[in-house]
Amino acid sequence: MSGDPARHPPPPSRTPTSYDVAQRAGVSQSAVSRCFRPGGSIAPETRARVLKAARELGYQPNAIASGLKAKRSNLVAVLISNLTNLYYPEVLAGLTRQLNARDNRVLLFALETEDEVDAALDQVWRYRVDGAIVAARLSAPQLRAFQRHRVPVVLYNRWSDGSDPVSSVCCDSPGGERMLVDRLLAAGHRRFGLIAGPEDNTVGRSRIEAARTRLEQAGLTPVVAGGSFDHDSGAQGFRRLMMANDGAIDAVICANDLMAIGAIDAAREDFGLDVPRDVSVVGFDGVGPAAWASYRLTTVRQPVNRMTEAAVGMLLERVADPDLPPEVRTLTGTLITGASARLG
Amino acid sequence: MSGDPARHPPPPSRTPTSYDVAQRAGVSQSAVSRCFRPGGSIAPETRARVLKAARELGYQPNAIASGLKAKRSNLVAVLISNLTNLYYPEVLAGLTRQLNARDNRVLLFALETEDEVDAALDQVWRYRVDGAIVAARLSAPQLRAFQRHRVPVVLYNRWSDGSDPVSSVCCDSPGGERMLVDRLLAAGHRRFGLIAGPEDNTVGRSRIEAARTRLEQAGLTPVVAGGSFDHDSGAQGFRRLMMANDGAIDAVICANDLMAIGAIDAAREDFGLDVPRDVSVVGFDGVGPAAWASYRLTTVRQPVNRMTEAAVGMLLERVADPDLPPEVRTLTGTLITGASARLG
Repeated sequence: MSGDPARHPPPPSRTPTSYDVAQRAGVSQSAVSRCFRPGGSIAPETRARVLKAARELGYQPNAIASGLKAKRSNLVAVLISNLTNLYYPEVLAGLTRQLNARDNRVLLFALETEDEVDAALDQVWRYRVDGAIVAARLSAPQLRAFQRHRVPVVLYNRWSDGSDPVSSVCCDSPGGERMLVDRLLAAGHRRFGLIAGPEDNTVGRSRIEAARTRLEQAGLTPVVAGGSFDHDSGAQGFRRLMMANDGAIDAVICANDLMAIGAIDAAREDFGLDVPRDVSVVGFDGVGPAAWASYRLTTVRQPVNRMTEAAVGMLLERVADPDLPPEVRTLTGTLITGASARLG
Repeated sequence: MSGDPARHPPPPSRTPTSYDVAQRAGVSQSAVSRCFRPGGSIAPETRARVLKAARELGYQPNAIASGLKAKRSNLVAVLISNLTNLYYPEVLAGLTRQLNARDNRVLLFALETEDEVDAALDQVWRYRVDGAIVAARLSAPQLRAFQRHRVPVVLYNRWSDGSDPVSSVCCDSPGGERMLVDRLLAAGHRRFGLIAGPEDNTVGRSRIEAARTRLEQAGLTPVVAGGSFDHDSGAQGFRRLMMANDGAIDAVICANDLMAIGAIDAAREDFGLDVPRDVSVVGFDGVGPAAWASYRLTTVRQPVNRMTEAAVGMLLERVADPDLPPEVRTLTGTLITGASARLG
């Protein structure tokens, strides 16, 4: 701490190198390098001297340089779209927590438009990441590029559209929608409106298709309004459904929570309706605001913790063994019986 | 596309190297390396041949290896706490967008507790990032470690507590609170309650202190309830203020929007109050849900785009010239006159 400057000289003002550590420890540079290489062979006494010198100098082995040699960067690319959508921050926090806990770092790509994917992928290849987790839409050629570059990839709530199999973790959207529809039907709802997500979004599409199919099986034909997953488009979708049906709507099924919240706001504000007495509104995701007293949304909560844990586990397995076959894991959501729908 | 395999051989099954490109282009490896080094000198015809061969082979120059040589990794660490707080996803999206636009990548550290900072910083040093933007609390020794490791840092809505100057970008929280208090006073509010943020959060503290000081200057003594920046603690804070004052509260000033939303929900749900007729509630931040029809929060919106742009600009200036002196930039927020407060 204090005292003898000969015993505790200040660290050099430039960043200390392995050479400085070797000098101070009185060992070869190669011994320093072996000391910091996983599995490197070195005598215990030498290791102790190197570690002591490194600590005193504030030396940090260069992770990127070691990664180059070990063919591992411990970097995982996370590509995520719609970061300001309320669902994704929770996903990103979960992925980052899981990856950090397993000694990997997150190289983040926040995509705002589909056009940005190619530019992001160029960077993914350049940084020699160990793997990637993608919660954004990839084309078939983009997916094939991962194979070509030998970068393991796991899709999050996305899936390949048939051609080549790709590992993915999904929440069972169709199953969740069937749960909602069955309970709404059992409670006597007959005139249904659906508010869809963006047309190019596979998750949103699978939810609305599942709800529509289930309703058609029950002999009903729902009206569908377009939406874009945000609050405003939910409010607007609700107004469109009311116009198209002269107000004769019993239940509105929204492709996500944020649009359901917008629909509830529009029902109250624009039509003076009571939710759920006059109309039932349900969502999907289980985001934080869905539980707020003004909404208490009836929804299906995605098991985000288990999903992010599964995605990270599957990816790191494939980093360790790139020959593992692709795997698709589908986790079931939980029905949250809030107060925005009359359920049977 | 199809046809002659001699003209379009498949890319080699291993990742192509600069050696493969040199072979295919019929040039030296050093020419390939000059072609991909910014400012590298190379004849236009040679460059064209190298680029063609690289494209055909799917070759990507190794950014990390180039970064090591150029002493630049083009990696910027972003340390952010409370990623699931509604304000930070917008900040992270802004920082990532700005950094990517300037050809830098984001190495993300999502911190859940203060204890995680040291572990994150160890990784920051190891990855030889060019710089760091920190929206989390750092101790004085942690701030000094940035100097010691010669990693430029810009704080986002945080500031050093006096000892060493550090660059930072902040929204003018005290100024924003004074605006809110003055308008509430002008509208005749006299009995004030404040809901504070976490005790160790400097932003929250500066907001509540500024509001309290302004009220005391007006001869008023507000009641203060503790909170933790989330919806539940806002609701609970509101209940505590009502209990402590036998319901005699005119206006509630919350250290952020999320708690203000919780306070509004509690006012309506638990006390049957009309907001703002019976009580005015104001927040701070301008997050998305503040604008929803159920709340229409009166608040101060932080200029997130300008703040993230400033933070990235200041950081990259210091990466280019580490000797630039620290700089503090304070940007003024905008008063949003929603419908949750009677303003004068």
